[in-house]
Amino acid sequence: MKRILLTGFEPFMKEAINPSWEAVRRLDGERIAGYEVSACELPTVFKRAQQVLIEQIKKLRPSVVICVGQAGGRAEITVERVAINLIDARIPDNDGEAPVDVPVADEGPAAYFASIPVKTIQHQLKQAGIPCQVSYTAGTYVCNSTFYALMHAIYSMQAQDEIRGGFIHIPFLPEQAAHHPGKPSMSLEVVIEALRKAIEALDTEASAGESAGTLH
Amino acid sequence: MKRILLTGFEPFMKEAINPSWEAVRRLDGERIAGYEVSACELPTVFKRAQQVLIEQIKKLRPSVVICVGQAGGRAEITVERVAINLIDARIPDNDGEAPVDVPVADEGPAAYFASIPVKTIQHQLKQAGIPCQVSYTAGTYVCNSTFYALMHAIYSMQAQDEIRGGFIHIPFLPEQAAHHPGKPSMSLEVVIEALRKAIEALDTEASAGESAGTLH
Amino acid sequence: MKRILLTGFEPFMKEAINPSWEAVRRLDGERIAGYEVSACELPTVFKRAQQVLIEQIKKLRPSVVICVGQAGGRAEITVERVAINLIDARIPDNDGEAPVDVPVADEGPAAYFASIPVKTIQHQLKQAGIPCQVSYTAGTYVCNSTFYALMHAIYSMQAQDEIRGGFIHIPFLPEQAAHHPGKPSMSLEVVIEALRKAIEALDTEASAGESAGTLH
Amino acid sequence: MKRILLTGFEPFMKEAINPSWEAVRRLDGERIAGYEVSACELPTVFKRAQQVLIEQIKKLRPSVVICVGQAGGRAEITVERVAINLIDARIPDNDGEAPVDVPVADEGPAAYFASIPVKTIQHQLKQAGIPCQVSYTAGTYVCNSTFYALMHAIYSMQAQDEIRGGFIHIPFLPEQAAHHPGKPSMSLEVVIEALRKAIEALDTEASAGESAGTLH
Repeated sequence: MKRILLTGFEPFMKEAINPSWEAVRRLDGERIAGYEVSACELPTVFKRAQQVLIEQIKKLRPSVVICVGQAGGRAEITVERVAINLIDARIPDNDGEAPVDVPVADEGPAAYFASIPVKTIQHQLKQAGIPCQVSYTAGTYVCNSTFYALMHAIYSMQAQDEIRGGFIHIPFLPEQAAHHPGKPSMSLEVVIEALRKAIEALDTEASAGESAGTLH
Repeated sequence: MKRILLTGFEPFMKEAINPSWEAVRRLDGERIAGYEVSACELPTVFKRAQQVLIEQIKKLRPSVVICVGQAGGRAEITVERVAINLIDARIPDNDGEAPVDVPVADEGPAAYFASIPVKTIQHQLKQAGIPCQVSYTAGTYVCNSTFYALMHAIYSMQAQDEIRGGFIHIPFLPEQAAHHPGKPSMSLEVVIEALRKAIEALDTEASAGESAGTLH
Repeated sequence: MKRILLTGFEPFMKEAINPSWEAVRRLDGERIAGYEVSACELPTVFKRAQQVLIEQIKKLRPSVVICVGQAGGRAEITVERVAINLIDARIPDNDGEAPVDVPVADEGPAAYFASIPVKTIQHQLKQAGIPCQVSYTAGTYVCNSTFYALMHAIYSMQAQDEIRGGFIHIPFLPEQAAHHPGKPSMSLEVVIEALRKAIEALDTEASAGESAGTLH
Repeated sequence: MKRILLTGFEPFMKEAINPSWEAVRRLDGERIAGYEVSACELPTVFKRAQQVLIEQIKKLRPSVVICVGQAGGRAEITVERVAINLIDARIPDNDGEAPVDVPVADEGPAAYFASIPVKTIQHQLKQAGIPCQVSYTAGTYVCNSTFYALMHAIYSMQAQDEIRGGFIHIPFLPEQAAHHPGKPSMSLEVVIEALRKAIEALDTEASAGESAGTLH
């Protein structure tokens, strides 16, 4: 059976929980649309997040890797389309590091596109009644750097035909937004359902057309 | 046993459902904090909403009336503090009427304050992990006019010592926001829990201090 | 010649300037549409703002009073339609006072509507290419309390046929927004022109229809 | 004398004017910080915009090229840091073309970083009292495709040591925002001053450090 690796992050920025790990860990071991889900928690740390991620990829040999992260302030599930080779931290990571204007990978290209079918995922989620948009910036913090490191690892291993990679941002949970006046939120149940629908979208006919595209 | 009347509205603006009625009808018959809940659906019509509401008040003799309405675009539960004597419809109501710059009640005062404990409700919801704010404008459409008509009826019947009145706005449901790009949403389960917590807040010690205030 | 009193506020909240006073003071002495403009700076203090305002009204006997205030975060000129009898300060005023949930005037009504023609002003400004909306909440800080005190004074003096009153909120200036990431701004020149257009709108034919309305 | 090429776009989306061309054409011929400014209007058309742009570069041999475009809805000057190799048009361009999910350049890399000093520009503008942020997405419409085509041309000509390229997004003008309720705006005078300050930032000491960075 094919395997999909879902990752979530540790809490950061004084939050008690990170909804990405809360959602992802509840899918660990589930079988969805022909994939067995493995969930893994990543440290919210520039250097170690990618190390843990790449170890897991080498160990589990998944067909798909989707990293999930919290985007406090966004109202919808956002499927990231572009990872850029840039770190620019406004706040320190959980190891106290806050690099500014440095690349994720010294010799890497400026960016990678996601290789999961972002438009099909968006469409399927909206069909299922879940607010969702494609996003063209994953920021410049640990989410983007992990997404870039994922795609860079896939291409460096010349595994782009075997492993598809992508990143999905999710809103605050209601209990987080309760302490951030004005900020939108999304319930854990909706987020979990969104991730299931995203996995179901991976191998649909629509997605086939999408991944045959010319973007690389 | 004391009775609380909760009202929700019919769908409007091409929406298939109105989350206010979806939430309120699921609480019908429940007993919460010493109140028996009666739920009632109001037409999204300037004239008829208040007629139905006042009939129900006369029939049920509730101790508390909370009207609930959809505020598409808001991210949080918002507890309205002020109802104004003004109708200004940008879109027609469900009877096709769109009055502009007319009062709700010809001889009524400019505004009424809610007599439910809005700050205590806000506090209790946030404590329960539900995003919530006090709001100082319920708009100028059917929500505000119904809220104003409620308070005007209570005062016209000189029932302000027997009946407390208020209005709570709720966000789009996720399945609605899926068709309104960028708009925040809140799950039905969270909204229902918010209404339960609001009822539980009505007779707490904190609320006693609040209702003893000088606003009238 | 008829007189119009325009007021602006002192800076508050660590801002070096308040755009309301910057705009208003530049119009002092101008003659616009048959009005001679008198400008006056009010302290950003709950108690003293209304004292200074009422002294000026008694001294100058203006036909129109428009108080102008800063609404940091709003993108457009907003013409306030409603003043409520409520003070709820999240931050201290410039005298260090931060009253919570107290009325502006102990025996006053819950609210007053502006008696300047808010819709005509909105229309004229938009015609002149200036972003403008009618607003239904002036907040619960010194702006609202001064607006309420203005209308309460006019009605207490039974001067509602001689003096029209209103309140206009203006955005941050660009130099303020430069230190508030993401916040919109409006140039002083545009704000000054907006105030001129608002004065020109006061006695147009459209405004006559508006002030003959039934709101009181 | 060194030359800087500034481009603006034709109006699109039913707007009567495009603030980018309005600003840029007023700087044509000016000498700023050692640069002579040449202004050029580009069609808001995927194919022709880059053709006109590249002709102008070949003709004028500028040391710096900054394309300027309208970002209706943004509140600040935004200095774009990344151009992506993707066109995804929600609305047709001015030739009626609306390509979806196609690359700007078939064989181009996924993205280019701007080679103007984006952080120094941001800093200088804020110092001058002009709201400004670095942005990490220029969208997927003609602005991004022109920015990408600019950088791709510079690298294809192996001119990256002779020509620096970048893109600056500007808000609606007030007269445009007057017809887009709720949208922020910025006066033409502020935009023109922002572009002057951006040019002055190009060769400061701070910018030298920035362009010596490792991003490529």
